[in-house]
Amino acid sequence: MEFSSKLLENAVNQVSQLPGIGKRTALRLVLHLLKQPIEQTSALTGALQTMRNDLKFCKSCHNISDLEFCEICSNPHRNEEIICVVEDIRDVMAIENTSSHKGLYHVLGGKISPIDGVGPHDLNIPTLVEKVKSGKVKELIFALSPTMEGDTTNFYIFKQIQGLQVETSTIARGISVGDELEYADEITLGRSILNRIPFESSLKS
Amino acid sequence: MEFSSKLLENAVNQVSQLPGIGKRTALRLVLHLLKQPIEQTSALTGALQTMRNDLKFCKSCHNISDLEFCEICSNPHRNEEIICVVEDIRDVMAIENTSSHKGLYHVLGGKISPIDGVGPHDLNIPTLVEKVKSGKVKELIFALSPTMEGDTTNFYIFKQIQGLQVETSTIARGISVGDELEYADEITLGRSILNRIPFESSLKS
Repeated sequence: MEFSSKLLENAVNQVSQLPGIGKRTALRLVLHLLKQPIEQTSALTGALQTMRNDLKFCKSCHNISDLEFCEICSNPHRNEEIICVVEDIRDVMAIENTSSHKGLYHVLGGKISPIDGVGPHDLNIPTLVEKVKSGKVKELIFALSPTMEGDTTNFYIFKQIQGLQVETSTIARGISVGDELEYADEITLGRSILNRIPFESSLKS
Repeated sequence: MEFSSKLLENAVNQVSQLPGIGKRTALRLVLHLLKQPIEQTSALTGALQTMRNDLKFCKSCHNISDLEFCEICSNPHRNEEIICVVEDIRDVMAIENTSSHKGLYHVLGGKISPIDGVGPHDLNIPTLVEKVKSGKVKELIFALSPTMEGDTTNFYIFKQIQGLQVETSTIARGISVGDELEYADEITLGRSILNRIPFESSLKS
């Protein structure tokens, strides 16, 4: 792509470094900004820069927060004894939307993935182990994606806390609500049979 | 979508104002920036802000340019007598890539579109008419998209310069190179027969 302007080229190159945005899309976005009032660009760049500079992570659960401790951790109505272990903040938002979890969270910041160069020490695992060692936690709910990396991470944490006084559980894998059985993959369908639950308890949810 | 941070929410809202980017994509992009070094965000916001503040439009053809006149207009090897009329700078880039046009351009900045509230006075049409009146231009090539709006814009300009000493042409509409004839739409196929060209001249290109 040949540009008639270095400033334009530089802006397009920067925008196209964002994940999933190629040069053509970047050019479209940048030209859109050029057509809008200059205030819109200032608002966009200002919001991004302020967020990147000032955003904090909760000292307890590593969730994104404007204060030292996030709204969930500082809410006295949440159950401190149950901690849901998730990969990133989007999972916190997804689970919060369900209103099914009344405990706290612990955001790992990723999954163990040797291919991507992510080891256990790149994740917020030590603070989780400390929390469990403190004795306040009664249950850890592993809510990572059911992938190879997610399962590896679950197992690594499980080994770290083995022998400590804490229950561990993992979110149920099974057929999605509303899914056709015939289109479910074999592993999911197989697990959903192995991990079947009493019919009465399915009526509660 | 509920956010645990106002800074994050503000950034996501700003990014999701870009065309084709929803809240979910915006959140993904913003969280990506959070994981990268702070320098990447500064480079991105800096490039966008500098571009929006300092970018100029060529005084002659309204193409984007770092100088008063763009590289094409200030190139003495280009033919000043042939002007290709296009909608925006992306069309200039597309036509430049073909190396088929040795003349100059005139960027209208849009098409006449009453539905979107774009009238003739919102476009760079007066400067084009002036150029033609100056007598230096021998041919105008209309290279707008073959849509209702494009055709309206072509016709409006045509009426403005009617009676002046200038030839007008429009880029050929026809079957794309490599396309199967049976999948072409009727109007395009019909036009391609009406506007057929001598076989010898098809051998040249």
